[in-house]
Formats: sequence, structure tokens, C-alpha cells
Amino acid sequence: MALVVRNTERTPLDVVDALAHYGVATIHEAQDRTGLLAAHLRPIYRPVRIAGNALTCEVAPGDNWSIHVAVELARPGDVLVVTPTSPCSDGYFGELLATSLVAHGVRGLVIDAGVRDVADLTSMGFPVWSKAVSAQGTVKETPGNVQTPIVCAGAYVRPGDVIVADDDGVVVVRREDASAVLAASKAREDNEQAKRVRLAAGELGLDLYAMRDKLATRGLRYVDEAPS
Amino acid sequence: MALVVRNTERTPLDVVDALAHYGVATIHEAQDRTGLLAAHLRPIYRPVRIAGNALTCEVAPGDNWSIHVAVELARPGDVLVVTPTSPCSDGYFGELLATSLVAHGVRGLVIDAGVRDVADLTSMGFPVWSKAVSAQGTVKETPGNVQTPIVCAGAYVRPGDVIVADDDGVVVVRREDASAVLAASKAREDNEQAKRVRLAAGELGLDLYAMRDKLATRGLRYVDEAPS
Amino acid sequence: MALVVRNTERTPLDVVDALAHYGVATIHEAQDRTGLLAAHLRPIYRPVRIAGNALTCEVAPGDNWSIHVAVELARPGDVLVVTPTSPCSDGYFGELLATSLVAHGVRGLVIDAGVRDVADLTSMGFPVWSKAVSAQGTVKETPGNVQTPIVCAGAYVRPGDVIVADDDGVVVVRREDASAVLAASKAREDNEQAKRVRLAAGELGLDLYAMRDKLATRGLRYVDEAPS
Amino acid sequence: MALVVRNTERTPLDVVDALAHYGVATIHEAQDRTGLLAAHLRPIYRPVRIAGNALTCEVAPGDNWSIHVAVELARPGDVLVVTPTSPCSDGYFGELLATSLVAHGVRGLVIDAGVRDVADLTSMGFPVWSKAVSAQGTVKETPGNVQTPIVCAGAYVRPGDVIVADDDGVVVVRREDASAVLAASKAREDNEQAKRVRLAAGELGLDLYAMRDKLATRGLRYVDEAPS
Amino acid sequence: MALVVRNTERTPLDVVDALAHYGVATIHEAQDRTGLLAAHLRPIYRPVRIAGNALTCEVAPGDNWSIHVAVELARPGDVLVVTPTSPCSDGYFGELLATSLVAHGVRGLVIDAGVRDVADLTSMGFPVWSKAVSAQGTVKETPGNVQTPIVCAGAYVRPGDVIVADDDGVVVVRREDASAVLAASKAREDNEQAKRVRLAAGELGLDLYAMRDKLATRGLRYVDEAPS
Amino acid sequence: MALVVRNTERTPLDVVDALAHYGVATIHEAQDRTGLLAAHLRPIYRPVRIAGNALTCEVAPGDNWSIHVAVELARPGDVLVVTPTSPCSDGYFGELLATSLVAHGVRGLVIDAGVRDVADLTSMGFPVWSKAVSAQGTVKETPGNVQTPIVCAGAYVRPGDVIVADDDGVVVVRREDASAVLAASKAREDNEQAKRVRLAAGELGLDLYAMRDKLATRGLRYVDEAPS
Repeated sequence: MALVVRNTERTPLDVVDALAHYGVATIHEAQDRTGLLAAHLRPIYRPVRIAGNALTCEVAPGDNWSIHVAVELARPGDVLVVTPTSPCSDGYFGELLATSLVAHGVRGLVIDAGVRDVADLTSMGFPVWSKAVSAQGTVKETPGNVQTPIVCAGAYVRPGDVIVADDDGVVVVRREDASAVLAASKAREDNEQAKRVRLAAGELGLDLYAMRDKLATRGLRYVDEAPS
Repeated sequence: MALVVRNTERTPLDVVDALAHYGVATIHEAQDRTGLLAAHLRPIYRPVRIAGNALTCEVAPGDNWSIHVAVELARPGDVLVVTPTSPCSDGYFGELLATSLVAHGVRGLVIDAGVRDVADLTSMGFPVWSKAVSAQGTVKETPGNVQTPIVCAGAYVRPGDVIVADDDGVVVVRREDASAVLAASKAREDNEQAKRVRLAAGELGLDLYAMRDKLATRGLRYVDEAPS
Repeated sequence: MALVVRNTERTPLDVVDALAHYGVATIHEAQDRTGLLAAHLRPIYRPVRIAGNALTCEVAPGDNWSIHVAVELARPGDVLVVTPTSPCSDGYFGELLATSLVAHGVRGLVIDAGVRDVADLTSMGFPVWSKAVSAQGTVKETPGNVQTPIVCAGAYVRPGDVIVADDDGVVVVRREDASAVLAASKAREDNEQAKRVRLAAGELGLDLYAMRDKLATRGLRYVDEAPS
Repeated sequence: MALVVRNTERTPLDVVDALAHYGVATIHEAQDRTGLLAAHLRPIYRPVRIAGNALTCEVAPGDNWSIHVAVELARPGDVLVVTPTSPCSDGYFGELLATSLVAHGVRGLVIDAGVRDVADLTSMGFPVWSKAVSAQGTVKETPGNVQTPIVCAGAYVRPGDVIVADDDGVVVVRREDASAVLAASKAREDNEQAKRVRLAAGELGLDLYAMRDKLATRGLRYVDEAPS
Repeated sequence: MALVVRNTERTPLDVVDALAHYGVATIHEAQDRTGLLAAHLRPIYRPVRIAGNALTCEVAPGDNWSIHVAVELARPGDVLVVTPTSPCSDGYFGELLATSLVAHGVRGLVIDAGVRDVADLTSMGFPVWSKAVSAQGTVKETPGNVQTPIVCAGAYVRPGDVIVADDDGVVVVRREDASAVLAASKAREDNEQAKRVRLAAGELGLDLYAMRDKLATRGLRYVDEAPS
Repeated sequence: MALVVRNTERTPLDVVDALAHYGVATIHEAQDRTGLLAAHLRPIYRPVRIAGNALTCEVAPGDNWSIHVAVELARPGDVLVVTPTSPCSDGYFGELLATSLVAHGVRGLVIDAGVRDVADLTSMGFPVWSKAVSAQGTVKETPGNVQTPIVCAGAYVRPGDVIVADDDGVVVVRREDASAVLAASKAREDNEQAKRVRLAAGELGLDLYAMRDKLATRGLRYVDEAPS
């Protein structure tokens, strides 16, 4: 009953690659604070930053069969996004699968489960964001859907949406929003650069952002003695 | 209804700086195993060690407004200590705020919540101890108390108490105890150096600490076969 | 009522040392996916890999007394394996104990609890797998069993079983199985090398492992449009 | 920037009400083991079972403003489904809001956060599935989306999808699948009744489900002595 | 080095008893959303509500000795509040200690650790809020402070502060604030009764609280079609 | 490669049934505080108490096949003890399996994973201790060992060891120790009855257990003013 969807759309790689210039926090802000995957997904090494098209994959608990199915659908510039159908921290993925993905141009892995061979993956420079590191092996008995929309770590991800991931975590940008988010990210970063200079010179955020009146309105009160 | 207390006392920086020579474990022992913040606070990079005066700040969940208020009260040698009024792992703090704090002489951040821009914070050498890394942004709607006594990660922290933080975690030293704890830390470390030499030479802790009789009294029994 | 068992058997060091050539994931697979300790045990630094004979030790919560007892029973090539009698994340172990263990030839520590002095332990190159880093000190009031069979992080470990630990985690190999597992590990690694070359050349796992028929039997279906 | 969508479609109440005859486990099986919300959502009292149309609502952390917005869009037979935009366990909901929802025909609440007044909610017979019970109050500063598709506790929920919830947890049935799932649930339950009678009479599942050959093929081996 | 403080002040029992008429959520609101203990403290049976003077007690991990010390200081109307000096979920407390406390007029237990004999405690009607139920026994080797200020489940509690606890959790009211909080609680409850009647009649919170303009200002937008 | 061991020894039912008169806390104490399963195993209803012979079973993650195998080996008076080979919270067990177990005289289930149909299991009076309630179904692809020694929730359990479970949790008594533990439990309970009477009369534990001298030796100090 598992489904594999071929020939799904992807976001053009020039847009994807341009998004990779911006960090996850910037992109998350640029799209109104949406699209963030849960913070329990952590990179296996740091620093790191990638962007790519989501190649989505569901796996049964303790069963990595559909990852092998997904490899065949990979295109250069993809990032594999794996979610288990129920919570699992087994080591679904290791350096052999990474070798195979690299051969097909895949840029990294995002998985709401465990991975293993992390020393090898680090040596190879194959980036992974996972919720666990575990040597626990998996079976190949129950295939899952590949290239269908999934929920991964609390976020809704469709094939060909853009995944950006760095030391801060992972964010998904909807395919149809990618260009707009790219523009908004650039605007945000330009704006921040001006602020950075002023803050570095000692200017207070209270003044830079003109917060004092609003704070007073909200009841902020200054006193000179410690409360008893 | 939020309160900002100006002109709170601080611990003299010579005492603070001298405490920075000792690790968190040593200081925690030197003050009778008190003052430790919960172990879920972890540094964003290692190795690291700092000491400073606590600049305390409460924040609403998902709202970092009072951090901006706190910056104005910062003095060189402070460490910002932030606690949310209910559990939250959002990314309250990033490199712009760090830039601002550095401009005011603040030495680091301890936060029982999340931070973002950790690659930049690491590059800047701005040390942070947090319970999470998360790109999730925060709003500025509800100010919280600044420079009042707080509970952060299970420890009671008052403005001007000394914060020492390293790879092992974070400890608070009460302002009025700082000199005594400094002396006790030095004594402890001197004592340990002598033990280290003897243990390195192969002497047993059982003999060095004269434990054998007490162990026998407590019922320790030696046998030569494995139990069935 | 605590028991210390002297003169327990150990696995010959040539077998132990040969097992150290293989990673935890490989050995775990080579013994039918058994013997893995829970994934919450993480190394304090990476990369790292060791193997040794289990020197087992039970500790009371917040009480590290029996670790001192265990040191006397250590032999070169041992790995200390510590489990608390109820869940605890205190810092049972630091650099003084590590200094003592190194003097007796112990290769590392596996502990289902906390450790401290992790900056020093890292500098010394003393490897530790723990469930927490915590500066919280422990008392010496209640001795626990030493060199008896224990459950550590969900695995049954007997004195003299082989412990292998690396970036992926920790696995225990039963003393009587050590030679067979060594042979199976070598066979597995040889087999994987051939596969690695083919996967790196772009061959699909679907073909390499001849999965296509079985997948069809299990109901995998390919379509060309995304599901609504 | 928050969006409220009026006049969304709903599943006909006769189908919804018919689904309420079946438990969450049955419905989850009847739709190929999809649609389950995470198991950390637990009912505040037991036994309980409801079904209704999803009335969806996003809330900021520590901010329940959009729940008030959602009430206006409620129709009889709805179940309110609330998800925070970042993890939060505050008490977003109490008996005043429940009173208001009851007045508008809402049958219960599913919330991936905390609730309070659980004694009153229990007395009222207003069913709630939540991840926490907490008296912590929330503010009204940042509205969230209402009646847009959301991810709640790991499941994708759209307005007007059917929510079924009982002692086992919560499942969502897609609006367009509701009739088919209803039929499949009935078929499944009929089938189980026959099995129940045979199992109660002592027949073995091994025989009832004809498992013995497949088990032998998969390597199951019977022995008469315990392994050493 | 443990300290027992005798003759600490308490809050007058008439104020304490009057506070018991209000739930934890009401009191928490009445004192500006402060004083709540963490939501992981849950009652062992429901429904339940008590108020009493805090009798504070620190315990070592796995060691309940100081609870015995605390009993001697108990006065009628007290609630025992116990915090471990490092995280522990052992069963510190059972029906024998409850029997002793009842004999001295203590009304219940709040403990950021585990309890056992919960069937007996339930039969006795002795209320407990704990973070765990565990049969794991504790030793008597290391006394802790009694009747000193403590941090329990994230809240700062001093001897003689008022503890109110019910199905929603536990809140502490500062001794010097008790009368004012009592008055504010009454005012809040009176105010809510009027709202309850209007909400039950179907009036919307949007109108009752006059939220529509502010929501529009904050960017809430209504549309009639679902977003793509 | 899974193994099923037939004709394992069991503890005589008269001893098992006599142990059921004592609670888990008492038995755990009577055998020197050993044998307790982790506290995250909780009963699905309360009050409850059972004792029985362990019928052990390993299951793959998300796969309950070997439970069906275990039923055939059940004998009246058994308690089924199930452990997954890696952490899993799926609903491995429901009312159909319970119906089958009841038909074979099995008294209850202990499972370090999830169960479903808890409303039905409660109505049937079939007791279960689990780490989760989840409707998530499981597959039947990978058999596990049955009636071999296992680690369940941190405890080592062999077929025919005695399982006692109640509101406090679950404890295992080794088959060869069962009679001695029964005697020790009776002695402990007799002893406690005498203490209960004295404590109920207001006698202090400090006196009853003659703790005052030892406390003074350990540094307990009484003062009459609160510390600053």
C-alpha cells in the first residue's frame, strides 16, 4: 500500500542555492516565522549549512527499506527528508547509504530518528540532522511512501519544497514561496547589517528600536532599590 | 507590572576574576555542593570558562523584550542570566543581541531556554549556556522583571551574585560568600594536587582516603567466585 | 550487603584489541543486533573508539563510593562500566578518578549517569560515555556491588564481557562469543567494502540487494502524479 | 498577518456521528494506520469518546488569543484543535472558554499544550486531550491563524476533517475519506467479533491467523532447554 | 552541615484556610502569574484541593532522612514541601511517614521526586503532588536542611509561605502577600462569575472582552476561502 | 534466528500467590532493594495488584508478532513480560490479545512499550503496566525471542521469575529467592504494623528509630532564626 511518486516538481536550483547563503534563523523570519522543524533535530557536526530540494520518505519503525527506494528518485541538489510513521530512534542510516546518496548528488539528510556511522559521515563531510545517534540496525520488511507530503519533526514538507539546514536547525520553504522568501531574506540581512554596526558602537536596542514608550505603556517601572 | 531595578550591588571584579580560575565542580564543592544550575544547561561550544556578575532577566514565553531592557543595565564583567516565566525553548537570543552585549562588556549568557545564530556566536567567541538551540523567533509584547532575584534552572540567583560557567555547567556563588568560596576553592585545589600525584603513581583511593574500615562496617564483602 | 567479586574471568586482550578495529554498528550487526546499550549514552568527545574488558560497578544514587572499590580490581585493558541503582545524573566521576584509573591501565568509562571535569578528561584523552555532564558531587556512604552482573543502560553486562564504544555508542559482547563476533565482524566489513565500491559508482541498492520483486510483493506502487 | 478562514467545509454530521461508534484504534487501522496524533496527548478524564469536525487554531507560545477568535467560527459538532507555533505547556484553556464552546455546540478540545481548571472541566463533562495540565496563564497579544491547515502533535489536520478521540488518543480522518473509513471501520469490527469468540474459547492466534509456516520461514526455532 | 530552623513564622490559618476556597489557577492569576511550581508535579489522586503553611525540607538523592527531622517541626495546617538537592525520582515517602504526618496535623505533601504506597495514601486520603511514583527505597545517611528557603520544582518557597494545591498543580503564595492575594482571588472569582453567565448564554469573548479592534490592529484578517 | 524456549521452570503458584499479598514496595525492600522495573511503567487503571510467573517475550520495534508466539507457551498464573529490542511506544497489545491471554490463564501484562484499547482492557479487568498508551498498530514481520532471559525497563527478568505489580510499579523476584523473599516480606510487614501504631499516636520517627545521635554526628544543627 506504499506509494512512490515519480517526476515531482522541484524548486529551481539557482533559487535553492541562493537560499543557502542565508541562515535558518534569517529564512524562518523572512517567511513570517513559519516552517521550522522541531529543535530536537541536531546536526552531527558543526559548522554546517546546506540547502536542497526535499526528497521525502516515510519509514516504518525500525525499518529503513523505503530509503533504498528513495535513492532511485534522487536528483542532484536534493536533501533526503525521512520521517518514521511512529516515534523511533534507531540508526536508520549509515555511511553505505550516504555513499549511495552522494553518488546521486544528494546534499544531506534530515531524519526525525537516529543515524549511525557518524564518525564516517563526518569524515565524508555528509551532513545529517537527526534526533539521535544510535547503532541500532533496522530491517527491510515494510515499505513506506516516497515523495509524498509528510510531517517531519512537526513541519509539513512536500517533495520539492526547499530545505535549508545549519547549526541552528532545519527550515522548510514552500516551493511556490521560494523566490519571495529569498528576496525577503536578502532584505532582512541588509537591514540587520546596519543595526549591527550601531549596536556594536554601543547604541541601545531600546533606542534603536524606539521601545521606551511602548515599554512604559506596558507597565515597565524602574526603581533604584532591590525588592525585599 | 514588570520591574527594573537599577544600581544593584555587584561582587567586586577582582573576586569574580579570581573565581574564574577555578572550575564549576571545584566551586560547587567549595560551597558545600550548593548553587548548581540544572545540568540541562549546556555550552554551545567547548572548551570554555567564564565568571561574571549576574545580570538577571525574566522573559515571557516566546518573548525576548526584557533582554533589550537588561542591556541598558549591563556593566563590564556581567553575565546575563535569563529565565522564562514558563518553560520555553524558543531562540530568544542571537548574534545581534550578542553584539550589543559585547559592546557593554558582558561576558556571556546563561539562559534556561533556546538560542540561535550559534555558528556566529561561536565565531565571535561569545559563550552561551542554554537548554536548547532553536531558530524560532520571539516577539516583543510582554516585558519581564530585570535585576530582581530569579530562579534559573532550579537555582536561586540574585543580581550581583557571581556566575561561574564552564564545560561542566553553571554555578552561582552568593555575593556575600564570594570571598570565602574563593578561599575554599583555592584550598580544595591545592589539596587535590597532592592527591593527584599519589593517584597517578598508582596509590589506591581506598588507602589514600582510608576507606577500608568504613567499607567493612557498611557491609562490603569480598568473595572470589562470581555469584550464581 | 554489597559484594565485591575478585578474580573474575576476562576476555583475552588479543581478542579485545582485535574487536577495537571494528565500529559499534558493525559489531552490533555481527552479533545479530544484540548487546547495544541505550542511545542516551554519548561520548564526551569525538572521534573516539575503544574496546576493553568490562569492570562492572553498581552505585547508589548520588554516591560514588564503589567506584573507589572498583579501582583496586582493575587490570590493564579494562573499561569501567557503572550503573546507578536508581536513575541519577549526578557527576559521579572526574579527573582525579580518571587519573587513578589510568594508573591502573583502565581504558575508559561507560556510566549511565553523569560525569564532571569533562574539559580535563578531554585534555587527558580519557574517553567517557555518559548520560549527562553534571558538576553535582556525590557522597561516600553506601557501597554497591563490584564485578557482579549488572544492567547498564538497558543491556546486561557481566565482568569480563567485552565493551566496544565509539562515536555511535556502546555495545557489549559476551565473553564466550567474543571470538565468533570478531570473525563475523571481519566478514561483514569485507562484504561491505565490495558494496561500497558499487554504490559509490552509482549502482542502486534496489538492484545491488535485488529488492524490486519483494517490494512489489509488499504492495509498493509507483505513480507519476502527486496524490491530491 | 494572522488569517481567519470563514465558511470552510465540514464533514456531514451523520458520518461524523457514525464514526464515533468506533474507537481510535479501529479507525486508525481502517485507514491504513495513518492520521494518529502523537501519544503524548492524553485525556483529562476516562472513559471518554467523541467525534467531531476539526475547528483548527494556531496559538503563539503563552498566548491564547486566537482561541477566542475561533469560538466565533464554531458550529455544533465541532472539536477545537489547537497547536502552538512553538512547544509550550502553559494552561491555554480553562472552564470559562469551555463554557463558551459548549454554548456554541463544540464537543471537546484537542490541544498540543496545557490546560487548567481540569476539575471543573471534568465536572462539566467537557472532554480534553492535552499534553500537560498547567495552571500557567497566557496573554492575548499575538493572534494566530484560525481554520487553516495545521500540524498538531505530528499530524496534518485541515478544517472540517473528522477528529475521533478516546482513551487511546486522537486520530484525524480526512474529510474526503470519512465515508470510506466509516465503512472500513465497520468491516474491521465485524471481523474482530468473530475472532474474539474463537480466541476467548482458547484457540491460538498462531492457528487463527495461520502464522506457523511463516514464522518457521522467518527462522523461529523451538528448543526445550533454556539457553546458557 | 545541615541546618534545621525552629520557630519559623507561619501564615495565620484563617488566611490559609480562606485561600483554600480558590483554585490554583485563580490564585496564580491573582498574584500576577507568579509562584507556580512546575507542571510535572501531579496529584496522586483527583479531585483534591488543599492549602497549608510550607514546611520545607531538602533531601539528598536517594536519601529521605531529613523528612524524619521535619516531622518534629510540623504544626497543624502545614504542608510538607520536599526538594532533592539533585534530580531524583526515588520513592522517598510512603504510608508510614504519612501516618506520622497526619498525627501531627500535616495536610499533604509536595515533593519534586517520587513517592510510593500510593494505593494506601489514596485510601487514607493523604494528598500528594509528586513528579513520579516509584517503589524505590531510600537510605538515611545524609541529612539536609529543614525549614530553610528552598527551590522546589522551579519555585522559591520559604517556610510559612502558603502552599495551595489542586488538580491543576501547586502554587506558593508569599507569607507577606497572603491577605492581598486572598482579596484579589475573591475579586477575580466574582468577576468571572458574571462572565460565565454571559458566555454560557452564547455571547462571544470577542465582544465581551472588546477584542475586535485590537485584533484588527494586530493584523488579523478574515477571508472566505481556504488558502491554497 | 529467534528462539522459543519451551518447558521452562516456573515458581510454584502457592509461593507466587502468597507474594501477591504484599505490595511492590514491601517486596523490593525485602530483597535488599533489588529487582525494581523502571518507574515509567505505569498501570492503566488503579487500584490494582497481581503476582505471576514471568512469561518473557522480545518484540521488534513496531512489530508484535512474538506476542502471538508467547500465548501458546502461557500457563495459568503467568504474567506476560514484553520488551522491545529498541525503544518503541507503539500500541503492541489490545483487547483481542487480552482475550486470548485470559483464555489461557494469564493474569496481566508488563510491557516497556505502548498498549491500546485501554477502555476495553479496563472494563475486562485485565491489568497492564506500560510506558505509553498509543493506538499505533504494529506489524507481524520479525519474530523475537520468547521465554529467554530479557532486560525489561532496566531489570533482568528470566522465565518463571515472579512478577509482582501494583499501583507503585513492578518488581521481579528471582525464582530461587521467592520463598525467602516471601518470608522477609512477611517479617517486614509485621514489623511495620508495630511502628504504624506508634507513629499514629504521634511518636516521632527520630525517637522510634533512635536517629538523634547519628544526626548530630552527621552535622545536623538546630537554630532558632532563619538564615539571612
